[in-house]
Amino acid sequence: MRVVTFGEIMLRLAPNGNLRFLQSESFEALFGGAEANVAVGLANFGIDSAFVTKLPKHEIGQAAVNSLRRYGVDTCYIARGGDRVGIYYCEKGAGPRPGKVIYDRAGSAVSLSEASDYDFTAALKGADWFHITGITAGVVKTDVILSALEAAKAAGATVSIDYNYRSKLWTRDEMKTVMRQIVPYADVFIGGETDACDLLGEKPDDPMRTLYEKYGFRAVASTFRESISASDNIIGARLITDGKEYFSKKYPVRIVDRVGGGDAFDAGLIYAMLNGYEPQYAVEFAVASSCLKHTVEGDFGIAEVSEAAALADGNADGSVLR
Amino acid sequence: MRVVTFGEIMLRLAPNGNLRFLQSESFEALFGGAEANVAVGLANFGIDSAFVTKLPKHEIGQAAVNSLRRYGVDTCYIARGGDRVGIYYCEKGAGPRPGKVIYDRAGSAVSLSEASDYDFTAALKGADWFHITGITAGVVKTDVILSALEAAKAAGATVSIDYNYRSKLWTRDEMKTVMRQIVPYADVFIGGETDACDLLGEKPDDPMRTLYEKYGFRAVASTFRESISASDNIIGARLITDGKEYFSKKYPVRIVDRVGGGDAFDAGLIYAMLNGYEPQYAVEFAVASSCLKHTVEGDFGIAEVSEAAALADGNADGSVLR
Amino acid sequence: MRVVTFGEIMLRLAPNGNLRFLQSESFEALFGGAEANVAVGLANFGIDSAFVTKLPKHEIGQAAVNSLRRYGVDTCYIARGGDRVGIYYCEKGAGPRPGKVIYDRAGSAVSLSEASDYDFTAALKGADWFHITGITAGVVKTDVILSALEAAKAAGATVSIDYNYRSKLWTRDEMKTVMRQIVPYADVFIGGETDACDLLGEKPDDPMRTLYEKYGFRAVASTFRESISASDNIIGARLITDGKEYFSKKYPVRIVDRVGGGDAFDAGLIYAMLNGYEPQYAVEFAVASSCLKHTVEGDFGIAEVSEAAALADGNADGSVLR
Amino acid sequence: MRVVTFGEIMLRLAPNGNLRFLQSESFEALFGGAEANVAVGLANFGIDSAFVTKLPKHEIGQAAVNSLRRYGVDTCYIARGGDRVGIYYCEKGAGPRPGKVIYDRAGSAVSLSEASDYDFTAALKGADWFHITGITAGVVKTDVILSALEAAKAAGATVSIDYNYRSKLWTRDEMKTVMRQIVPYADVFIGGETDACDLLGEKPDDPMRTLYEKYGFRAVASTFRESISASDNIIGARLITDGKEYFSKKYPVRIVDRVGGGDAFDAGLIYAMLNGYEPQYAVEFAVASSCLKHTVEGDFGIAEVSEAAALADGNADGSVLR
Amino acid sequence: MRVVTFGEIMLRLAPNGNLRFLQSESFEALFGGAEANVAVGLANFGIDSAFVTKLPKHEIGQAAVNSLRRYGVDTCYIARGGDRVGIYYCEKGAGPRPGKVIYDRAGSAVSLSEASDYDFTAALKGADWFHITGITAGVVKTDVILSALEAAKAAGATVSIDYNYRSKLWTRDEMKTVMRQIVPYADVFIGGETDACDLLGEKPDDPMRTLYEKYGFRAVASTFRESISASDNIIGARLITDGKEYFSKKYPVRIVDRVGGGDAFDAGLIYAMLNGYEPQYAVEFAVASSCLKHTVEGDFGIAEVSEAAALADGNADGSVLR
Amino acid sequence: MRVVTFGEIMLRLAPNGNLRFLQSESFEALFGGAEANVAVGLANFGIDSAFVTKLPKHEIGQAAVNSLRRYGVDTCYIARGGDRVGIYYCEKGAGPRPGKVIYDRAGSAVSLSEASDYDFTAALKGADWFHITGITAGVVKTDVILSALEAAKAAGATVSIDYNYRSKLWTRDEMKTVMRQIVPYADVFIGGETDACDLLGEKPDDPMRTLYEKYGFRAVASTFRESISASDNIIGARLITDGKEYFSKKYPVRIVDRVGGGDAFDAGLIYAMLNGYEPQYAVEFAVASSCLKHTVEGDFGIAEVSEAAALADGNADGSVLR
Repeated sequence: MRVVTFGEIMLRLAPNGNLRFLQSESFEALFGGAEANVAVGLANFGIDSAFVTKLPKHEIGQAAVNSLRRYGVDTCYIARGGDRVGIYYCEKGAGPRPGKVIYDRAGSAVSLSEASDYDFTAALKGADWFHITGITAGVVKTDVILSALEAAKAAGATVSIDYNYRSKLWTRDEMKTVMRQIVPYADVFIGGETDACDLLGEKPDDPMRTLYEKYGFRAVASTFRESISASDNIIGARLITDGKEYFSKKYPVRIVDRVGGGDAFDAGLIYAMLNGYEPQYAVEFAVASSCLKHTVEGDFGIAEVSEAAALADGNADGSVLR
Repeated sequence: MRVVTFGEIMLRLAPNGNLRFLQSESFEALFGGAEANVAVGLANFGIDSAFVTKLPKHEIGQAAVNSLRRYGVDTCYIARGGDRVGIYYCEKGAGPRPGKVIYDRAGSAVSLSEASDYDFTAALKGADWFHITGITAGVVKTDVILSALEAAKAAGATVSIDYNYRSKLWTRDEMKTVMRQIVPYADVFIGGETDACDLLGEKPDDPMRTLYEKYGFRAVASTFRESISASDNIIGARLITDGKEYFSKKYPVRIVDRVGGGDAFDAGLIYAMLNGYEPQYAVEFAVASSCLKHTVEGDFGIAEVSEAAALADGNADGSVLR
Repeated sequence: MRVVTFGEIMLRLAPNGNLRFLQSESFEALFGGAEANVAVGLANFGIDSAFVTKLPKHEIGQAAVNSLRRYGVDTCYIARGGDRVGIYYCEKGAGPRPGKVIYDRAGSAVSLSEASDYDFTAALKGADWFHITGITAGVVKTDVILSALEAAKAAGATVSIDYNYRSKLWTRDEMKTVMRQIVPYADVFIGGETDACDLLGEKPDDPMRTLYEKYGFRAVASTFRESISASDNIIGARLITDGKEYFSKKYPVRIVDRVGGGDAFDAGLIYAMLNGYEPQYAVEFAVASSCLKHTVEGDFGIAEVSEAAALADGNADGSVLR
Repeated sequence: MRVVTFGEIMLRLAPNGNLRFLQSESFEALFGGAEANVAVGLANFGIDSAFVTKLPKHEIGQAAVNSLRRYGVDTCYIARGGDRVGIYYCEKGAGPRPGKVIYDRAGSAVSLSEASDYDFTAALKGADWFHITGITAGVVKTDVILSALEAAKAAGATVSIDYNYRSKLWTRDEMKTVMRQIVPYADVFIGGETDACDLLGEKPDDPMRTLYEKYGFRAVASTFRESISASDNIIGARLITDGKEYFSKKYPVRIVDRVGGGDAFDAGLIYAMLNGYEPQYAVEFAVASSCLKHTVEGDFGIAEVSEAAALADGNADGSVLR
Repeated sequence: MRVVTFGEIMLRLAPNGNLRFLQSESFEALFGGAEANVAVGLANFGIDSAFVTKLPKHEIGQAAVNSLRRYGVDTCYIARGGDRVGIYYCEKGAGPRPGKVIYDRAGSAVSLSEASDYDFTAALKGADWFHITGITAGVVKTDVILSALEAAKAAGATVSIDYNYRSKLWTRDEMKTVMRQIVPYADVFIGGETDACDLLGEKPDDPMRTLYEKYGFRAVASTFRESISASDNIIGARLITDGKEYFSKKYPVRIVDRVGGGDAFDAGLIYAMLNGYEPQYAVEFAVASSCLKHTVEGDFGIAEVSEAAALADGNADGSVLR
Repeated sequence: MRVVTFGEIMLRLAPNGNLRFLQSESFEALFGGAEANVAVGLANFGIDSAFVTKLPKHEIGQAAVNSLRRYGVDTCYIARGGDRVGIYYCEKGAGPRPGKVIYDRAGSAVSLSEASDYDFTAALKGADWFHITGITAGVVKTDVILSALEAAKAAGATVSIDYNYRSKLWTRDEMKTVMRQIVPYADVFIGGETDACDLLGEKPDDPMRTLYEKYGFRAVASTFRESISASDNIIGARLITDGKEYFSKKYPVRIVDRVGGGDAFDAGLIYAMLNGYEPQYAVEFAVASSCLKHTVEGDFGIAEVSEAAALADGNADGSVLR
């Protein structure tokens, strides 16, 4: 099975441990970005996954490529050129102090790219699934995204879209204008109630269900998060498919790294649906994947299928395996 | 608005992370000390703050100066000379294991300093507030402290004193003899019930209120701390002012660094009072400042006003800002 | 008082902090092993403790020796020779993600050693106590262990055995065949109900009590652990001695390092029994020793008697000592 | 004495030690830029120095400010606003492998700034010296630079300009067009023969002397560098002033950090001329300042006057001071 | 062009910086091995390179795979199974103190592997070149190596063999017995005079030339190294091909990491020959590749073709590229 | 063979790598001191060595003890008590920039100790050699030193004294008054010509020979050091014994750590004389020991006899051992 994702991968600069930006004289320098995270998560699950983007030819661009290759992601369809690798600065929260993100992604190679930079037809050849998020919709020119989606459809791939609103990128109004062009390509939609209302242009009693029905999606998934503090969250999800709805258990999580939890959910959901898991187990598996991500440093979800399955099965006590 | 503090700044040598003294072959080397911490906290809140002390001319002394300048503290009135920068070794606690402090501050430049080393009149020119703690009373000659307090009074500055008993420095009996000379200069008193009883020479039903009344303080503040473990505390405070008392909410905190919480409370209280906050909000803001400090490595409270205000306003879930 | 332990000490390679094996480009390189941990724990309690094993002459073997000498363990009876220091790779768990151990200990010097490599008689001269675990029974030739036990008995030492089943070493069936030869030498037995049933060949209502009675042990101890997650455990223990049973309080622990908790319990129990503590206090002290270990990085329990005693006495709030 | 400099300060991201970009998963995160380096170098020499630039209000901008304050640079005239802190990635060379710099500075706050963002008149009030380099000429709008130069002239400050061609910023032809507008403001010119020829539009036998005469400079200085390898250089300089020329000794240097050597030369020359050093000693002192910088990590020259003087005096054996 | 190599990749555990084994409490944990190093070096030169070995399925085995994928090496033909990843401990030398290597590779997955574990025919399909070293001959069963060589011949690939005697693996006599079976498959031989004599069974005046002629090699290459100290070497090489001999320049190198220099030479020679470089330039390029490796941490040669070419062209002054 | 040394062991706080004091926010925290370094050096050579000092009971004192135990030094005769562990701050030099030491040792436990704190008779029982330096003479009360020397003489131990003048401790005049009381106890004297002149009260043509003869020493040794820069030294030594003089070869050394070279020379000389080496080889061995120390981080000389012997035998090319 092959999954292709398209988006931006950024250099993630983070102070060590609990240091604040103002205290730090070094940064952990990892790479991440919503769709790249999904591609890595799926590769770690054993899926043949490819990530498409545009990156400069210089060493920082190459390091981004290498970070993906390391985990087995197919990087052959990454366009090379441009000047900048987008950056985000990431400060971890702790207890009552929230984490902080500062974006420095304007002018990145992918944000200035054109549809002609990519060979989406080749990249999507044989793909079973294509995934993209609303973050990319705010970064990349819309016609680039549309040409990727057209290629995905032409290849017969299932398309999933995670709405993923980021207030530091654009307003909800700006976003919905773009998303209304993109979301119709989706088979599987991941997002929250506000997102659904933005798309629907109304506030129905059950926006997700309304969205599911109006768009005729194969599935709609929404995650739930109770932030006890920056260090402890409780997470869960709801999945609507086959006309029914399925709720996962609520999973308490000690947060090691807050970023990438939604992407790991997406990777888990895609994996589960590609493998034909029963809906109830699919949503448990997706949430388990998300929980595990929160225990892993960096954007990438480094977990095996057996680990997510064990957690989905209820083995959450963290006993050492020896 | 200008705040001046006077005291000792020490080199703080701490094993990395959760390592114990016996395991560590390197130390984080930061600087801190009660009044220095208050000065830095206020500087981070945007206040023009100055710290007065005496430090050797050599590079370790200069590094202490630089640690303050970095956060914008005015260091122009620091006397330079003497041989030693005081040191404290600091081992973090974890869960049921308490943190440990070993002082090595005898013979530090400030502890041997004379009143003639300082130009308190110049340092306090235009100051709105002067702050000192009982730790300094145990380290520095009393007449030096009195000359600072006289200068503060002459400048028309509000004076705050945090009692801050340290059993490794001196006994309560030794301390009260000195503090009874100093505390009368205070407009704002921060301390606990035992401290109040020491000053009062009696154990009334409500020592803080009695102290407030007997000394005619503008305000008396007491912090409350429930130590669930070295990793989790619940903190709050009571403020007596205008003849009334105000209790903050109780804030649960995951502890990143246990030191400096009281100093951050002081900085928050001074900031709030300087800005004429309502008493109820003042005590919330001061506790919020203290909570944030516990999430920050080192002695210094690295937080902005907006962060403390958000927490005082009840936004404690730690959701990442992006 | 002198305690001797015998077993394997391994190089413990662990990613930093919460990193996973796949993310790490460096390893903390400490040393540990069940009986070595007990010897270090006792040395830190001020006991004259010796550890016997076989280690190669090269620098990695010497580094293992040095790690023990550092904490005052007598290493004079360690045989030197062979090629390998056994290794275990150790990944910390976090929240719902369990820790992982990968053993690479086949062919280690001690596992290939013969009884003639050791001078157990000399090592045990004057020893009050000898301690060994079931892990060593799975690694070292049985006749080597028996010759150590014979020497212990000849020296008049109390013998304690911790059953310590490790599923990655051998099956329960393989283990019980060996342990039935070894356990009869024990005066003090530490283990759980499944272990007791394996030894007894039956499943009585109260296996520990039955074991205690059938083997005529001086004492039987069982630890209890509730794994809330990899980050939080609640631990306690039961001690059967003098025909009565004693339960410790339940201690909540924030886990810094999950490995070595059982060994620290053993060290605490041995210390308590050597010093003639009352059974109720002995079990509290042993559990307190175990709790403290969980707050310390590495295999070794770095704690003083006063620290374990304070915790056993109920001072568990982790207030900083200053 | 007061010196003001104007330019860009960037976040400098460098792999640790000798690691290459492709190997590194963390970056040292320091700050630097030609004129900022000069300001810090002079502050460490005890000069009242100020640096003017524009930086975003967010924490990365604030961290840049703090890096300057730490060493005592006056940052009061730094404009705050814009989105980006310029970045340069910096890989150290070793032996025959050259160091590498990747610029990511397009769109930085200072590069988009207008003259109206700054109050150069206030910043230069009382200034004895103003310094700028040709790098800033390639980054900042020319009218901004000219308005700074006008303010410097109005304040009666000596103006020094370091030509500093950077091929990754612009071509020599592009540069000379701009520099011919700027260099006439200079009293002191630092540059090489190619630079002089670009300005002169001809290739005379002794371009520096010709430049010195044609522009009527107070002084012209040129540094000399023999790169034995990335690890070992020999450096020296020539100074033309009072119609005569002065050559420094040749100083062999083991390179710790290759960046900032020219800026430290500039700082040394400015310090020497401000203090009225004899020309021969001035050029020795400037080269010594440059040599010391090469032994210091980061862009900033962290050295005291006494250290540069000792080296200028010939004490170059590096014997430990104890 | 496609190159395939076969051998062992080990976990390389090295103290940080100049620390000795006995001082270190952490190890850099990279991966390396002669043929793996060649594969990575070629991948960094842009060649489609594949590495074949056998590695356990667990995370340490996976980390070895990932270390290769990161640099673009094809790992599809790596057999998975067995228990151990071979290890070597590596202490850097400095000045007059030599580096040290301790092998712990007995029982590694590849050393116990059988020919049936591999699909050499598939791995070598379309390969232009196959490379192996004498180290692998000392680790892996000879029939496994022979089956790889047969497959290489069947695929029409050029075969290169680096003799690479390691005294800690076996004696010269043991080695020559094996190598006499293997070397006849070679088209290109890399080794020294003692190696040639071992193969020839005689000590002719010019052993390399004699070997070249007797075996009818396409080319014979020998590297030359003058060790001034562990920190400074001078290296060069001689290439015999087309009946003539070519000597490279002598390159002085500051040593950052002493391991892998021969492998980088091999990678450079293979690259040069695959691209039909003139012999004189081929040997310069190969030595330049080796020099660059010595400036890079770890086993892997992280360099681009343009970097080796610049050095081969004589640009060795290490001037920073900016 | 047993060697005992007496003196101060300090906490050595050093910035990482080449960082300067003003840049560093962490310190390597090792321990060292002249006689402690000799004891560790000898223990690493396989000698039964003991170090005597006084250290506080707290964890920093214990860490100093543990640093010695780790390398096998007998610490049983260390007195425990007092408040301070002496400290020295240590900044590495590089190229033309000298290293710097800042002492903070006043008031250390050993400096305030009395003869009654120690049991020198027990410590020296069975000792073959006793070693002390002039540094200790400047730190510890003279009668304490004299009582140690008396005990050494009573035990029949050979006594060696290294003059070791430190200008930051005292003046040469102050020192010679004390040393003239101590040096008469010596059998072996290590020092330079100025030292000899101070003792002799005259400046003869060959002060060392004159000293040798006047005091009737068994041996006099002087080291020679040419500081090319802080990074490169050339060292050698002269030994006068049996009425003849012996000069070592001159050894070029790349400096990893400049401190402790003299102590390693002393350890090498003591080892050589204890083992009855021929004088020429003894001085080569001692210099080789010193050279190796300069390649090792920290104060302690971590080297084996075989390593020093190889270097003394002329194997200085640093070829990797594999």
